[in-house]
Amino acid sequence: MLIAGEKRTTIWPDAEGKGVLILDQTRLPHRIETVLLRDLDDAARAIKDMLVRGAPLIGVTAAYGVALAMRADASDAGLAKARETLRQTRPTAVNLAWALEQIGQFLSQMPEELRREAAFTFAKHLAEKDIACNSAIGDNGLAIFRDLARKREGKPLRILTHCNAGWLATVDWGTATAPIYKAQQAGIPLHVFVDETRPRNQGAFLTAFELGQQGVSHDLIVDNAGGHLMQHGEVDVCIVGADRIAANGDACNKIGTYLKALAAKDCGVPFYVAAPVSTFDFALEKGSLIPIEERVQDEVTHMSGEAASGDIVTVRVAPKTTSARNPGFDVTPARLVSGIITEKGVFAANTDALKALG
Amino acid sequence: MLIAGEKRTTIWPDAEGKGVLILDQTRLPHRIETVLLRDLDDAARAIKDMLVRGAPLIGVTAAYGVALAMRADASDAGLAKARETLRQTRPTAVNLAWALEQIGQFLSQMPEELRREAAFTFAKHLAEKDIACNSAIGDNGLAIFRDLARKREGKPLRILTHCNAGWLATVDWGTATAPIYKAQQAGIPLHVFVDETRPRNQGAFLTAFELGQQGVSHDLIVDNAGGHLMQHGEVDVCIVGADRIAANGDACNKIGTYLKALAAKDCGVPFYVAAPVSTFDFALEKGSLIPIEERVQDEVTHMSGEAASGDIVTVRVAPKTTSARNPGFDVTPARLVSGIITEKGVFAANTDALKALG
Repeated sequence: MLIAGEKRTTIWPDAEGKGVLILDQTRLPHRIETVLLRDLDDAARAIKDMLVRGAPLIGVTAAYGVALAMRADASDAGLAKARETLRQTRPTAVNLAWALEQIGQFLSQMPEELRREAAFTFAKHLAEKDIACNSAIGDNGLAIFRDLARKREGKPLRILTHCNAGWLATVDWGTATAPIYKAQQAGIPLHVFVDETRPRNQGAFLTAFELGQQGVSHDLIVDNAGGHLMQHGEVDVCIVGADRIAANGDACNKIGTYLKALAAKDCGVPFYVAAPVSTFDFALEKGSLIPIEERVQDEVTHMSGEAASGDIVTVRVAPKTTSARNPGFDVTPARLVSGIITEKGVFAANTDALKALG
Repeated sequence: MLIAGEKRTTIWPDAEGKGVLILDQTRLPHRIETVLLRDLDDAARAIKDMLVRGAPLIGVTAAYGVALAMRADASDAGLAKARETLRQTRPTAVNLAWALEQIGQFLSQMPEELRREAAFTFAKHLAEKDIACNSAIGDNGLAIFRDLARKREGKPLRILTHCNAGWLATVDWGTATAPIYKAQQAGIPLHVFVDETRPRNQGAFLTAFELGQQGVSHDLIVDNAGGHLMQHGEVDVCIVGADRIAANGDACNKIGTYLKALAAKDCGVPFYVAAPVSTFDFALEKGSLIPIEERVQDEVTHMSGEAASGDIVTVRVAPKTTSARNPGFDVTPARLVSGIITEKGVFAANTDALKALG
């Protein structure tokens, strides 16, 4: 997708062979900065410090991290060390473990002297697979948006999204944003309401940035506002990503998703989850079994942004003595989900319909 | 209630007769500053610039503003000018117009030479009435909390509240917080989850401050988190204030209240609205007729807080080109409200039950 009018992806090999380049997502939207990852430690730090984030992008970055490690030490010991170092960066990320397993298995079966080249090829292959998968999600979602747009008779289709399941969370296209970008390309008039998504503000910082760079009409709203807009018929469809989906269609996603799904149900607004098949955890019967990460209090009590001086400043937005609770995700019950948009098609959110994917 | 261990109200006449003192609420929680209102212009500015806020407190401040005006000019023209100046500060505040009407009628019926003294007495009377009203709301809510606390068998009663319907929005006690403070005084163990309440952060800035100063156990949460906590049985009751209640019990309150009411219903958590009878607008058949104020975009795109330097700094939390929508309130349908706690008792949220108050 576009940044400053240029076609970009979130990660790409440096043309001169110096390493792998990424966008530093901790600086967005205030600064657009590219960072060169030269070795294993650079890659591990980029994941750990969240310069890259989003499950698909983390997986691809880890694969590139192994490739960078192979340049220094392509032995079995070097491979094992690279996998272990990268695995520890974000211990709960399912895609990270999966990508490391994939590239690890692939490389361990070949002689050391081939690994350096093969590792880069494999990482590039994972990146391309991610792009193709998200593009397919986009096409499947586009069909839904096309139907909904027809009812709007030329007026913009009004879409609400939560958090960032955008191209910045993947290599390109995004998951929840893929149908939005496909609809834009298809010439369907659109307007997107972007939930700010406290506490980490991924909507304000990343989704609003993406949509703005891509020229998609949008308004930022606080997380409190979506229900009111739906009550007043100002939203035609909700679309969100997912971090993990249980066998019955219960969807774990960024904290606050459940509240929007409740409002959508109450107001008769369709509510879609867009996610690759790899997001499903068929071993989990239902969403209540998904453990929810409790994150640090500072994310709630402090906020960063750009001051009038141009500096990026962190400010405290709570009394000094106030403590905070900070659950990172919630589970939207399948009964509130109109459908799950995957690269293999759109599925009803129930155990029977989803069996086809398991 | 307490600030720094001292019993305070939000507004009080200066002991030396210099004027009227208020807490500057634009500086909370980072600074605790008292401001002296010396004349009509000071009072008007305090309301307009939101040094005082909350419908009951605005009304009382306006009455004191008239009293201050009478010290300079107690003529009919002086009275008319005071009423008009104060009315224009926050044109949509119902309590403001009501308080000005009350004190205006009272003063216009007496000779000029008595007005100076009488105006102060009347303003003080309005302040005391507000305190008594909120105390009665507290007692009525306490009965509900007592019942709910019994089921907790000695463990803290866990209460969720949205925005600031606290003592800082009134002269003392608050509305939604009155039952909390009464329960604290009654020795009922409590824990309060305080919604941050974007975009103006009244929960983080004011409610968390109030509860902290009063020694009530609490956690700040982002507006996204309440649904998850309710799903997991971590909330026993929700209590919120209201800006306007229709004849059928539909309650207009700070944006985001509707989402919490939906979650409470979905999770079987009782959801109460606490408000004085003056909040009811019996001329309105239902809540959808209440016009909702759309506020400035800056409230969404910028945020203020205390930087590490100790300075209060405003930072931009969105891309420069991103626009925002900012509805200030939403309407919670009566079907989601377990009861309305007033100074005259607790009422079911339906037209028949509420007729007793009309």
